[in-house]
Amino acid sequence: MKTLLLLFLLTSVSFAQDFKAHSYDHYNSIADSIISASLTEQKGFRLLPELSALGSRLSASESSYDAMEWAKQKMIEWNFDSVWMQPVMVPHWERGKIEECEISSSSDHLNKKLNVASLGRSVGTDSDGITAEILEVRSFEELQERKNEAKGKIIFFNKPWEDQHVNTFKGYGIAVQPRSQGAIEAAKVGGVAALVRSATHRMDDVPHVGAMSAYVDSLDKVPAMAISLVGAEFLSQALRTEPNLKITLKSSAINLPDKESFNVIGEIKGSEFPNEIIVAGGHFDAWDKGDGAHDDGAPSIQTMEVVELMKRLRLKPKRTIRCVLFANEENGLRGGLKYGEYAANSDEIHVAAIESDRGAFTPRGFSTTADSSKILKMKSWLPILNKTLIDWVRPGGSGADIGRIKNAQALIGFVPDMQRYFDYHHSENDIWTEVHPREMQLGTAAITLLAYIISEEGF
Amino acid sequence: MKTLLLLFLLTSVSFAQDFKAHSYDHYNSIADSIISASLTEQKGFRLLPELSALGSRLSASESSYDAMEWAKQKMIEWNFDSVWMQPVMVPHWERGKIEECEISSSSDHLNKKLNVASLGRSVGTDSDGITAEILEVRSFEELQERKNEAKGKIIFFNKPWEDQHVNTFKGYGIAVQPRSQGAIEAAKVGGVAALVRSATHRMDDVPHVGAMSAYVDSLDKVPAMAISLVGAEFLSQALRTEPNLKITLKSSAINLPDKESFNVIGEIKGSEFPNEIIVAGGHFDAWDKGDGAHDDGAPSIQTMEVVELMKRLRLKPKRTIRCVLFANEENGLRGGLKYGEYAANSDEIHVAAIESDRGAFTPRGFSTTADSSKILKMKSWLPILNKTLIDWVRPGGSGADIGRIKNAQALIGFVPDMQRYFDYHHSENDIWTEVHPREMQLGTAAITLLAYIISEEGF
Repeated sequence: MKTLLLLFLLTSVSFAQDFKAHSYDHYNSIADSIISASLTEQKGFRLLPELSALGSRLSASESSYDAMEWAKQKMIEWNFDSVWMQPVMVPHWERGKIEECEISSSSDHLNKKLNVASLGRSVGTDSDGITAEILEVRSFEELQERKNEAKGKIIFFNKPWEDQHVNTFKGYGIAVQPRSQGAIEAAKVGGVAALVRSATHRMDDVPHVGAMSAYVDSLDKVPAMAISLVGAEFLSQALRTEPNLKITLKSSAINLPDKESFNVIGEIKGSEFPNEIIVAGGHFDAWDKGDGAHDDGAPSIQTMEVVELMKRLRLKPKRTIRCVLFANEENGLRGGLKYGEYAANSDEIHVAAIESDRGAFTPRGFSTTADSSKILKMKSWLPILNKTLIDWVRPGGSGADIGRIKNAQALIGFVPDMQRYFDYHHSENDIWTEVHPREMQLGTAAITLLAYIISEEGF
Repeated sequence: MKTLLLLFLLTSVSFAQDFKAHSYDHYNSIADSIISASLTEQKGFRLLPELSALGSRLSASESSYDAMEWAKQKMIEWNFDSVWMQPVMVPHWERGKIEECEISSSSDHLNKKLNVASLGRSVGTDSDGITAEILEVRSFEELQERKNEAKGKIIFFNKPWEDQHVNTFKGYGIAVQPRSQGAIEAAKVGGVAALVRSATHRMDDVPHVGAMSAYVDSLDKVPAMAISLVGAEFLSQALRTEPNLKITLKSSAINLPDKESFNVIGEIKGSEFPNEIIVAGGHFDAWDKGDGAHDDGAPSIQTMEVVELMKRLRLKPKRTIRCVLFANEENGLRGGLKYGEYAANSDEIHVAAIESDRGAFTPRGFSTTADSSKILKMKSWLPILNKTLIDWVRPGGSGADIGRIKNAQALIGFVPDMQRYFDYHHSENDIWTEVHPREMQLGTAAITLLAYIISEEGF
């Protein structure tokens, strides 16, 4: 407690000293302009239906290229100083048209199709599907304990989301484990497929997809599918009535050879230090369910609007502000890896990178990986940042893509409210009409303001 | 700036000293219990459909009495230490069945019914309605400038919501003026009715109602109605085509004699200082559109759950924690006035009152009217309160009802995220399915935790 207290006092004093040394009052009117333009014109939000109409953005899909071209054309139309496409090879996984789960039971009322969806990277089944009995477990530990019952069965991972975690990303980190490792753990004990309760807290009949971990060569590659929460509850109940019922899983999922894709990049050049870069980015790929609106379409558009707002408001940032729409975060992180490699080998100085990949909800804070002096400096900007509802700057993780820019001086994750994110995440629920214009545009304003202050102040 | 800095330093030091003097670590496990129970059991949220099914809760309506009885029975069922009904006379305004706005134009495509709703306190029209030309204005100033054109016309107040205000309650404070004063201002210039653009930022076809200010005896009592944003835009466009078109407004609204209603009150007695009271409350009346779920059904239930959670978790607060469901906030504030009068004449000491009346969204902070030492003390609790996503305690307004408890030592408004509130406010959009279970239950946890800490620490 004493250490904490001392730290607190030191922090407060440093903060205050910094606040004294630099008056940030002149940012007030710029902040007001940014907020007003963002909230009243809602330019980013108005692009959502356009982006949605282009279709899925899953890596290597036809429509993902349409979306990249769309973003590039927007950046050109908005007079960005440079716009370019950075090539990167990405995995090419396709869902195909078939994904089915059908119960075969002696009781008519249990004979039912349940809503399922293949997990990214999973193999499919042959056209007859896989018909087998089920072993329902709550955890990998339970699976280990019951491994003698597992052979030849479909392993049904049915552990509900833990609602008590205020931080829904913590809840997700726990809930997602069977999605990541289920197929591998199932194969280890002789299971023939993995059926995984969707990683969400929303009780509805929509499966939530996402990537599974890569198969292990020494084990059978068994298919993995997500099942909706309503489906999971039905199946679990059915198994209580009839423990030996069988289900048939069918999936046309397929892994194809890697394909070239692109990070879409556009920037406004710094007026004094053009070689010093502030990245603002999101990932432009998305799962092929819904629009990928919160993950990560709207947040990607927020980062496009960051640069566009500089142009619209005739701001001349001292440092270069660069929007990077990363390819293939969802099932490969190849775009982030490629950009990180580029940054490592470039003469440019990456002053900071800001990622928006937690949905387009009301701003709360910035989670920052940087040395403590930079975090203190960011905290000294809070009186200005707070105008966009940023209440805190804390040490913490930033984002998967920018996390690869190892030589950046500060990696910053934009953290909006997170209570609804997993209602939508990786599912048909994630459509643009579920984005609130004010919430999204406040996020745009928060990221724009932070990028601008960093461009003026440096670290 | 220097004063600000000094204040900041003093605040930080006091905060730190306080934090040193009292360690609040022992509240951590209680906070975790409250959060876990609230988020996993979602008891409050699960009551929303029950409350909704009882119907409208507008003051003096039949169904408002059913709702009060329901709340009282819940408190009894939950073993509250005392439950009572505090009588109070409330206004009795009825909408009736008729509210219409029909355009009569020479162009067929303009002949259309638009969605309108009578404003609370407004008189109705006779059965033929009021047929008149329209004077469209953006402000009271414009109405003054054009008062020579106003006689015999329906005054159409059509000023859009100002989107640039991050604080939506500020936007509302501006947008609501024509709803409050439109009928009076219209009457002053010889207008025959007021038609008011709904006080919302959401572009849809749903009128948002609410109370207007009381009529002035020296002026004609002209009817006032709200029109949806889609309707307002249509009408405005139609007037550009055909400035002399007429509309017919019909309303069966009526003001009836006052009726007896009740504040519903239930409490857990303090184990050490039973005479020291912490009120947690919301208003139980609601407009007769939608469920009144965000305003103020769910927030009222949050404050019922505050006391219920004490019982469920077997907490024994030192001071009495009292839920007050105030009658008639919307069109009279009579419940708040009555309770304030009671408090003024009681031997009890009102240590604090907390109001939840800004929707059931994710917690952000507490806005507090109290002397600065009490606000500093509350700030010292932030490391604990933050577990429920409370990021700040600030001086500011509390709530309309508790604002009448003039002898309370601290008046505290619970402030959740406010970006979506006016999508729903006073309209058919405000239904319980628009309440997010996690957001609501985090609010319950935040208020419960604050009430508990105050009960243990005092001020």
